[in-house]
Amino acid sequence: MSLDDVRLARAYLARVAEPPAKALAAFVASVGPVDAAEAVRKGDCPQDVIDETIARRDRDRAEADLEAAGKTGARLIIPEDDEWPAWSLLCLDIAGQRGIPSAVPPLALWARGEAHLGDATEGAVAIVGARASSGYGESVAGEFAYGLVQRDLAIFSGAALGIDGAAHRGALAARGTTVALLGCALDAGYPAGHVTLLNMIAERGGLVVSEYPPGTPPARHRFLVRNRLIAALSEGTVVVEAGRRSGARNTANTAGILGKIVMAVPGPIGSATSVGCHDLIRNADATLVGSVEDVIEIVGRLGTHIPERLRPRRPTDGLGKEALRVHDALERREGKSADEIAAESGVPLQRVRAMLPALEMEGLAERHESGWRQHRRPREISEGA
Amino acid sequence: MSLDDVRLARAYLARVAEPPAKALAAFVASVGPVDAAEAVRKGDCPQDVIDETIARRDRDRAEADLEAAGKTGARLIIPEDDEWPAWSLLCLDIAGQRGIPSAVPPLALWARGEAHLGDATEGAVAIVGARASSGYGESVAGEFAYGLVQRDLAIFSGAALGIDGAAHRGALAARGTTVALLGCALDAGYPAGHVTLLNMIAERGGLVVSEYPPGTPPARHRFLVRNRLIAALSEGTVVVEAGRRSGARNTANTAGILGKIVMAVPGPIGSATSVGCHDLIRNADATLVGSVEDVIEIVGRLGTHIPERLRPRRPTDGLGKEALRVHDALERREGKSADEIAAESGVPLQRVRAMLPALEMEGLAERHESGWRQHRRPREISEGA
Repeated sequence: MSLDDVRLARAYLARVAEPPAKALAAFVASVGPVDAAEAVRKGDCPQDVIDETIARRDRDRAEADLEAAGKTGARLIIPEDDEWPAWSLLCLDIAGQRGIPSAVPPLALWARGEAHLGDATEGAVAIVGARASSGYGESVAGEFAYGLVQRDLAIFSGAALGIDGAAHRGALAARGTTVALLGCALDAGYPAGHVTLLNMIAERGGLVVSEYPPGTPPARHRFLVRNRLIAALSEGTVVVEAGRRSGARNTANTAGILGKIVMAVPGPIGSATSVGCHDLIRNADATLVGSVEDVIEIVGRLGTHIPERLRPRRPTDGLGKEALRVHDALERREGKSADEIAAESGVPLQRVRAMLPALEMEGLAERHESGWRQHRRPREISEGA
Repeated sequence: MSLDDVRLARAYLARVAEPPAKALAAFVASVGPVDAAEAVRKGDCPQDVIDETIARRDRDRAEADLEAAGKTGARLIIPEDDEWPAWSLLCLDIAGQRGIPSAVPPLALWARGEAHLGDATEGAVAIVGARASSGYGESVAGEFAYGLVQRDLAIFSGAALGIDGAAHRGALAARGTTVALLGCALDAGYPAGHVTLLNMIAERGGLVVSEYPPGTPPARHRFLVRNRLIAALSEGTVVVEAGRRSGARNTANTAGILGKIVMAVPGPIGSATSVGCHDLIRNADATLVGSVEDVIEIVGRLGTHIPERLRPRRPTDGLGKEALRVHDALERREGKSADEIAAESGVPLQRVRAMLPALEMEGLAERHESGWRQHRRPREISEGA
């Protein structure tokens, strides 16, 4: 079974269900993408997976999608790839285990641009805000993005008009890495006013990313679903301007639920575009940030803001069932190959391969000359300040 | 011993030591103002009291001070008066008992204007801020004061140029009660630019108040000492604008130490006059307020913001030694006269008289037809939200 087969399977799976498809994600995690794709095609899978996939399971355009993507410089990043941001997305697994319904990791991510997605997420800051922004907000978003990429932090945002666009532009102006997460397909040409900006992001060392297959039009619910990826893939989210009801507040709330840092920029109290920020600071524990230095200071002391309900008590408390099985299959002294661990844990090999580096980053596994083994002194996932 | 004798004694005592005079305050509380004044005059008192009073103990101008004050419509409010804000000032006693050096209640307060000081402090809000204010800050201060006095809350401030003046003016514009606390004598004519404003405050139902005797010039240390009265006499302090170093931040910090609510108004992040407010919100637990409604909501749930270190565990925990002795002298069933309580507790009669209403407001004493007795079911001083 080649990586191409896995990619084809995931390209198919990413199309047959509307994200976030919780049952399908669990099914893929359980039997592996190739078997899952085959089972979904035949309708030979659990009822909840059938429910999520029945409407689209005949749309098997994976090969054509991948071919067309290749022609436009796009690719499908899958969990089995090195650049898959396994560590960042772990928070979705954890929150999902704790019952947050929309906390489902993506099955794959379509991407266009030269940046390495996994690398970009390290220390990444999301800058989001209202589409109906003020000159003040746009200037702040641009300055923050400019200043943060100069410290080698990538700027994630949603490519919307207003604050999002100003953040992407600020990052580009400082020749930094910026990643645009879309609520539609890469080829949707949306927002129309930002087609050139999205091309610039892809061409100048950034990434345009979507979990939606080619041809998927934008939709309100897709922006909300997309927001979980902006929140998950960055270390902290800065809301620059937000009205009383605003998509940016949804991203901020999601970031809070995922245990990420939520920051908000204040503004004049008469300004309708700052009301949402003030409310986040006053009522939702968002930290007020007044400068690039504030953001760096706060993102620098990561891990101290994880909400109590999400804070693991033992090193392995935050792990999903599969990850626990993989961890349990590791021995303290002797290393094992991924094949051996897959056999022992009953977790598909591809998932084991994706999970081991994540366990390593959590201090729960280590590479040894004899293979993978448990880390000798597991460290707490949530360390004190 | 008449109330006039007590007032003369306190007028003398208020002049012989530079506030806050901790030893003198304790001495007066212990032997009563008349005996204390006599002892200070003769130098027949504890060494720490001598140290505080020796430089000025020959300046006995009490009679002339009171006479001159009367001619300008001013009066000396003393703890033995009905309008003494005993309840508000209790926080200084409590903080003093816990070792905060400057937390010393005033011996008396010079006042000019028609308002009843004790009544004015009920639900009072302090609005303070930078002298070098912006148009934005002045407009916010004025609007907040205007809106709050319309809800029958008095506005306390420091009569300084900038934010303070805008707050006083906003309250006057809505024909509300506003109280100016000075860091100099009532007759100092300071700040020069606000002499007319101060006259308006006194003439239109407000109060101009100072613990400094006639002739005392303004001084930087006096503004800081005065700030504790602004903080103590109001339920909460709103900082509208403050630079990186600002007297308003001193008032806010003092308010926090005294267990009062600290609020701050955000502004544009580039503005030097909002830096102090943002810092208070971010680093000093000040609550962001963006509207009059925010302030009312927060001042409405008083008692929930008392810092742990100042939060009494038992109903009597917050009381000073004297108040405890007075409380212990009360019986559960039979009422006693103030004379009896003074005799039994060994606390001077005038202090007993001032203290009993404060104990009543704390739910620790009640007036009964037979006199004062302990309240049957003492309620917690710090009630939950």
